[in-house]
Amino acid sequence: MEIKNREYFANRATIRNFADREVSVELIDKMLELAAKAPNTGNMQLYSAVVTVDEEQRRALAPAHFSQPASVTAPALITFCADIHRFERWSEERDAEPGFRNLQGFMAAVFDATILAQQFCTIAEMQGLATCYLGTTAYNAPQIAELLGLPSGVVPLLTVALGYPEAPAEDAGRILPSGFIHHERYSDYSAGRIDEIYAATEAREDSKRFVAENGKRTLAQVFADVRYPKASNEAFSEILLNFLKSSFLNS
Amino acid sequence: MEIKNREYFANRATIRNFADREVSVELIDKMLELAAKAPNTGNMQLYSAVVTVDEEQRRALAPAHFSQPASVTAPALITFCADIHRFERWSEERDAEPGFRNLQGFMAAVFDATILAQQFCTIAEMQGLATCYLGTTAYNAPQIAELLGLPSGVVPLLTVALGYPEAPAEDAGRILPSGFIHHERYSDYSAGRIDEIYAATEAREDSKRFVAENGKRTLAQVFADVRYPKASNEAFSEILLNFLKSSFLNS
Repeated sequence: MEIKNREYFANRATIRNFADREVSVELIDKMLELAAKAPNTGNMQLYSAVVTVDEEQRRALAPAHFSQPASVTAPALITFCADIHRFERWSEERDAEPGFRNLQGFMAAVFDATILAQQFCTIAEMQGLATCYLGTTAYNAPQIAELLGLPSGVVPLLTVALGYPEAPAEDAGRILPSGFIHHERYSDYSAGRIDEIYAATEAREDSKRFVAENGKRTLAQVFADVRYPKASNEAFSEILLNFLKSSFLNS
Repeated sequence: MEIKNREYFANRATIRNFADREVSVELIDKMLELAAKAPNTGNMQLYSAVVTVDEEQRRALAPAHFSQPASVTAPALITFCADIHRFERWSEERDAEPGFRNLQGFMAAVFDATILAQQFCTIAEMQGLATCYLGTTAYNAPQIAELLGLPSGVVPLLTVALGYPEAPAEDAGRILPSGFIHHERYSDYSAGRIDEIYAATEAREDSKRFVAENGKRTLAQVFADVRYPKASNEAFSEILLNFLKSSFLNS
């Protein structure tokens, strides 16, 4: 069966190094406007997008993203935020009392902001632009909120580094589709199935190099001990939870 | 400036009533496989998608979605889940100890699952299929987890009702783009700006009808009092929090 735009969807990949070429704010705004036709919760659009192109502001933001290459070389950073503040302001002006300062309100806003971000990435990549999500936004939310002047009720979640590609994207590979697709009911994983699902990932040259360079025995150990260590995940969880408590889950 | 596939992005809309026509599981799997080329956290793919086409299973799921029309008429329901279980199983088989049973682990998995869901919707809609997100999944997560046999570490987040459209989609409208796009810093909302941003939404015939039918004075009151009342948001927050505590944030 022929799938429309298969070429794009099958070959897209994240790009972390950008060419020295600006992206116009007019184009970014136009793409955000189109992206907002993506689905959202009850048409409340519980999100905001903060576009950063100013060099000084980008330089100020980079450390909050641990100065990873994409955060430094991208000519534009777009920070997607869960936002119930605007909806509350509207309600305030219209004599209504919304009740979104709770976990479900947060989840709805997280879905809305993430869907908007992904629709934006798809639109941008289809134009030949390159994108890279910075997952560090949720780690350093308080710092980013301060730099962007976010009021209570607005939580920065994901930043998209945007620019023109410096080199073609390299395929990162994925686990077997049968590894994440389940039919009718969740089908749990035997040791044999785990071997099958991760075989291609583990056989990649770059995977082997990561294991060797880090002095580990398995790729899973590189993730657990080097890239996403438990202690660091827990420390950043504490930071985010405190931020949510003080600027979202309160009233 | 010409934006590629503008026609699709500008005109897409959610469809809640589906034609009496099946979608093949083969096509669904193929689209999920393509969607998995979307970005995810560190290439860990912290998600699962459970595909439900079996009529009995769909009938069992519908009440968890309050039997809303899309949940009843769609020939396929795809439940997108945050999933750290598979990654933990892999780590277990590879002598590694991951640490994702915390807020950051949950957020990473929520981003991954939501991005996968949105990429899937875009691919499906570009084929002429119709989609509708069921936000009810996060409300009734425990019930859905039970029906789908989800193990600890797997949280159902969003369900996409999928089928062929019964009628063309109707444009739901959006707030002014300047209402959610900020440049360099968040620009807070004056009463006058709120009026401007929401003017088109409030002027819609269907908005006026909702206000009248519910005996309210403003559209914001319809959202706050009828569609998303605080007490109900809080009750469903409690259910989700308890579920997360017992089946994700534990170890």
